[in-house]
Order: sequence, then C-alpha cells, then structure tokens
Amino acid sequence: MAAAEASRTSEARRDAVFGRWVVFSPARSRRPTDLKSHNPTNPSPGPGADAPPKPSCPFCAGRESECAPQIFRVPPDGSLPWRIRVIQNLYPALRRDVDPPPVPEAEGDVSSDEPGERAVPGFGFHDVVIETPRHDVRLWDLDAEGVRDVLLAYAERVRQLGEHPAVQYVQVFKNHGASAGASMAHSHSQMLGTPFVPPSVTTRLNCMKEIFDRSGNCSLCEIRPKDILISETPNFSAIVPFAASYPFEIWIIPRQHISYFHEIDQDKALDLGSLLKTMLQKLSKQLNDPPFNFMVHSAPFKISSSCLPYTHWFLQIVPQLSVVGGFELGSGCYINPVFPEDAAKILRELDCSV
Amino acid sequence: MAAAEASRTSEARRDAVFGRWVVFSPARSRRPTDLKSHNPTNPSPGPGADAPPKPSCPFCAGRESECAPQIFRVPPDGSLPWRIRVIQNLYPALRRDVDPPPVPEAEGDVSSDEPGERAVPGFGFHDVVIETPRHDVRLWDLDAEGVRDVLLAYAERVRQLGEHPAVQYVQVFKNHGASAGASMAHSHSQMLGTPFVPPSVTTRLNCMKEIFDRSGNCSLCEIRPKDILISETPNFSAIVPFAASYPFEIWIIPRQHISYFHEIDQDKALDLGSLLKTMLQKLSKQLNDPPFNFMVHSAPFKISSSCLPYTHWFLQIVPQLSVVGGFELGSGCYINPVFPEDAAKILRELDCSV
Repeated sequence: MAAAEASRTSEARRDAVFGRWVVFSPARSRRPTDLKSHNPTNPSPGPGADAPPKPSCPFCAGRESECAPQIFRVPPDGSLPWRIRVIQNLYPALRRDVDPPPVPEAEGDVSSDEPGERAVPGFGFHDVVIETPRHDVRLWDLDAEGVRDVLLAYAERVRQLGEHPAVQYVQVFKNHGASAGASMAHSHSQMLGTPFVPPSVTTRLNCMKEIFDRSGNCSLCEIRPKDILISETPNFSAIVPFAASYPFEIWIIPRQHISYFHEIDQDKALDLGSLLKTMLQKLSKQLNDPPFNFMVHSAPFKISSSCLPYTHWFLQIVPQLSVVGGFELGSGCYINPVFPEDAAKILRELDCSV
Repeated sequence: MAAAEASRTSEARRDAVFGRWVVFSPARSRRPTDLKSHNPTNPSPGPGADAPPKPSCPFCAGRESECAPQIFRVPPDGSLPWRIRVIQNLYPALRRDVDPPPVPEAEGDVSSDEPGERAVPGFGFHDVVIETPRHDVRLWDLDAEGVRDVLLAYAERVRQLGEHPAVQYVQVFKNHGASAGASMAHSHSQMLGTPFVPPSVTTRLNCMKEIFDRSGNCSLCEIRPKDILISETPNFSAIVPFAASYPFEIWIIPRQHISYFHEIDQDKALDLGSLLKTMLQKLSKQLNDPPFNFMVHSAPFKISSSCLPYTHWFLQIVPQLSVVGGFELGSGCYINPVFPEDAAKILRELDCSV
C-alpha cells in the first residue's frame, strides 16, 4: 500500500456517465487508510435487544398518529406489526395539493423544453420510507431480506408516482447523519417526484448518449477493470468508480442492461439488498460510521424508446468525509485525495463477516 | 413581509445561466429574517489596531519564508511592506512540475473533446492570493481601494496563467470559514488553472448558447426586474438571482457585456471592489458572519470568437447556511427556503453604512 501510494502523482480523470472531471491529489491527504469521519453519526451503534422507542420520535412504532398520512405499509395486513411504512413528508419540498404544470408530449425528448428562465408551481410528491419501526436499528442492521423489502417499497412507490401524468422523474435518496442532511435520526429514506427532469439527470443522459452515438456502447455495460471492483454478485457489481468525485464513493451497478430501477424483481432485490448491506457495513467499519448519502439514478419516465439503449440505472453511495469549497461549487470539478484503486482495494479486503 | 411570506406557496424555477431547477419551499424554513449561520466564522470579528500576527500563521507578515514560492507582490517594490502576496499553494491539487497534456487546437469548440473515460496527468496551477498581511483583517475590512487591488491581483495572475498553452480555464474562488472549505483563517483567495474546461463551465456555456441561438440575447444582458436587485453601480448590478440555488446567494454582474473577468481595468475594479465589500458586509451583518464561498465565472481561454456574444462573466457569492443532502447530490436540483425577492428586499434595505 505504502509503495503504491508513494509512486502516485496527481491525475485528472473524467467519467463516462456524468462527464465530470475529478482531480486525484494524494498529496493533499493522509494515507487513505487514515481517512475517518470526524462526525460519526452514532458513537455507540447497534441494536439493543430491549431498547425502548425514543419518546420524541414520530417514526417509532406507536407514534404513527404524529406523522403525515400513510401511503402503504409492509406487511399490508394492519393486524400485524408493520416493518416498513411509506408516508407523506410532513414538510414537503414539493406539494401534491397544487395544480401540476401542463403535461409535455408523451414521447418527448428530455431536452425538448425551451431553455431560459421559467417558473412553475411547486407541484410534486415528497414521501418518506421508514425502514424499521425501531429507533436503534440502522438499514444495514436489517438482514438481507429486510433490506430487500425496503428496496421493493422504493420500487413500488416509484411505480405509483410514475403513473401520474405530470411526474417526470423520481429521485430516491437516503441521508444518514445530520451533516449528510438527515433531520431525523430514525432510519429512513426519501423520494421526490418532480414535474421536470432534474439537471443531473439531463447531464447524465446527454453524456451517455454522446458515448453511445460514437461507440455503440452503454457506458455502464462496459467491462469493469478488476482493480476498481469491490464485490460482485450474480446480478450486481459494486465498484469505486474510475473517476469517483468523493473518497470511498461506491456505485452498485446491475450487470445486465436495465434502464429503470423500479422494474427490479424479488430475486434481484434480495441480491441488491445483500450487497448494499455489505457495502454500508464496510463503509461504517472502515470510516468510523460516517454520515453518508445514497441515491438511485434511474431513467426519466417520459423518454422515447430510442434512449433506452444508453440508460442504465445504478445506486451511488457517497460518504461525507470532506467539505465542498469554492472550487467544487464554481467548476463542478471535484478534488479527491484517494485514488479509486486504493479505495477499492481497502474495501475489497475489509472483512465484515464477523 | 409577513403577509408576503404567508401568501407564498412552493414554486420551481429554472435559471437561464446554468439551466438548473431550484425548488422554493418557504414552508421548510423559519422566516427569512430568522435565517442565521450557526457556524459564525469569527465570533468577535474586526481588526484590532495593535493585534499581533498569529504565531503559527504562515500567511502573516514576517513569516513569508514558511510559504511556497512567491509569484508576485503588491507593491512590487521589496523595500516597502507588502499589502498583497500571490504565492504557490504549498499543497497543490494540480502540479506545475508534471508534463501538461497535449494542447488542443487553438480555436477549439469547448465540447470538441471526445466523450468517455479519460485520464490525464495532474498538470495545472494552484495559487493563493494573501489579501492582507494582517491576520485579523477580513476582505471586507479593507477599504474599496484595498479590495480593488485584490481583484486586480486576481486579474493579473489569471492573465499570466492564460498565456500557458495548456491552461484552458482559471477558476478563481474564495473560501471563508472552515465549513466553507477554508483550511487557513487568514484572509486569502485561491485559483486553479486547469488543463481542461470544467464541467460547470461547459454546462453554463451550452445553456447560454442555446438561449442565444433561440432569442439572440445574452442571458446576463437581460434587464433585471427591480424586485431581485440589491444595488447598482455605474458598471455592476448586485442581484439575488431569479432561481438562486442557495438562500441569500448573490450575483454581481457587469452591466456591459464582457466575456472575460481578467480584462477588468482600474476604474471598474474599484467600482466592483466597493460593491463586493458592501455585499460581504451585508451578508455578515444579516446572517451572523456566515461561512461563504465566492467564485468568478469567466470564459475559457481557448474558445472561438463566435462564443463571445453569449459569454458574460459574473461573480457568485454563496453563504453556507444549510447542508446539502441526497436530493441535491443526486438530482443537481436545489431546495431553497427563501424566495429571491424576499432575500433581495432584506439585503437591499439593510444599512451597512454605520
């Protein structure tokens, strides 16, 4: 490790999904193995067998009446205790009770909208997935079947939102830890159904289209070099991307070409649940329970079928270890002190089975 | 104020410079006038007449030998005390001592580069502008002439870097406060000269080109509505942009169409220095000395002259008041609790003359 690090000098890399340039600058950091969170989200983590619900937490079992309306629960049978609840956000960023903007043509191109300043009513959906009734359980404390069921709940709600004619995209995401944007400590995820295609999605699709037009290949179907691979299952690969914007960033990518996350089935969701659990365990162990975000990157609902050959969904996990400054804000270009190959080697070799 | 706020509901807006969608959601916040930084960068700010240099700060006068090499100083006469020093960064993200990548054609289009994964040596320049010899003086404590000289030092160094055939862009930026990315408390700015056009610059130019092609107008030459205007001088307008991504974000825009920041002259730099000083004073007073970043958005050096009609430089100031979460990271779309008209009114009416 030390020798490999010593031989590295700065390098700039551009990725094939967002077209982002990232500067790898190992001189600006300690050794990658020393990189830890200074803001661990839970200094004494792990479920206690008889821990009571937290008196003030509306996401705990028994306090359902303090939440915004429920959309569905798992299991659906109300005579059984719930394991997962999908509810409305009490403080929604977008509101389901205002008029939606006019619906664009069904088979519109994502960039067909006229450019320029524009204002539309803040219509949309902002929902919360409570991943467990217990306050002291984190997503990766659930067994693989438990994580599978959370993923299937995401997919079910995305499908429902996709049926609304004005919803163009659903951004599924999880914030873990206050400095990653979580306002509630109880394990949960969120999703926003938007009446527009978000800018990063347009950028991603344009970048992947350009590569497809020149090479005939989907950027995410390419064979991945062994040195950035962390783990593989029958259906998914977990990698540190070639041009990771953040140290120890992880992408989990379906090995088959699939455009939409919400088409996931039971078997694949179990496979993904198991891999996601392992990756979150590895990050927690290696980086001292860091705040993190994960995001599902899928395709917009209303795209033409000609876009499908180059859209390929994936899940991105970003541990929050460093501060974003003016260079990143201004240029959109990130400085990463850890080379992807080094991060992948550390995560690959880390044993979380005990 | 209260009535105006009460009548507002959520709205999504897209800007005409980056093409970004921003969700304005006043329900998610307290009143805009209550929004303050919880991380003031300097609880008892302001220069003390006889404050000594901080013993450990290499940016203070008398400790020049602890810094990386100097590039130039103001005034140049070494027998006089310096007021501004431009030096190399001791821990550069990009390095001037590695081979630069091949130079693209002189009159290349910004998007002419083949898309896809790519790695180049980490060549580039990473410089620091020490804005004052005194540890306890902030940029906006300088008089307008002092801020002018800092801006002229930026421009001079950008011009020098632009003469290097492999430098495509220079990102000038300032980080103020640890949570805005500043690792040194002593007032300073930075710039990175990159061998590629950064992604945000490409996005901005593409968005402004699309609008220009359809309307014949530069997005930033448009007449600005009075309700988002904070202040105007003969040469510059300070506004809260129509689709500000961050609460109390400010743009300072040249009123004349000018593509390159580094072409600024003495008179305009004094005008800008005075306006920048006032805006930083207003943010500090209104928001409890928040951490902030500012960035100069200029044009890449090697663009064809046909791009010039739609490139218009500006300076963006972003106070750091909130945490970025998974929605923003994933979608590139921001949630802002403060409407630009409300932020502009508060900043316009705030008196910093005393």
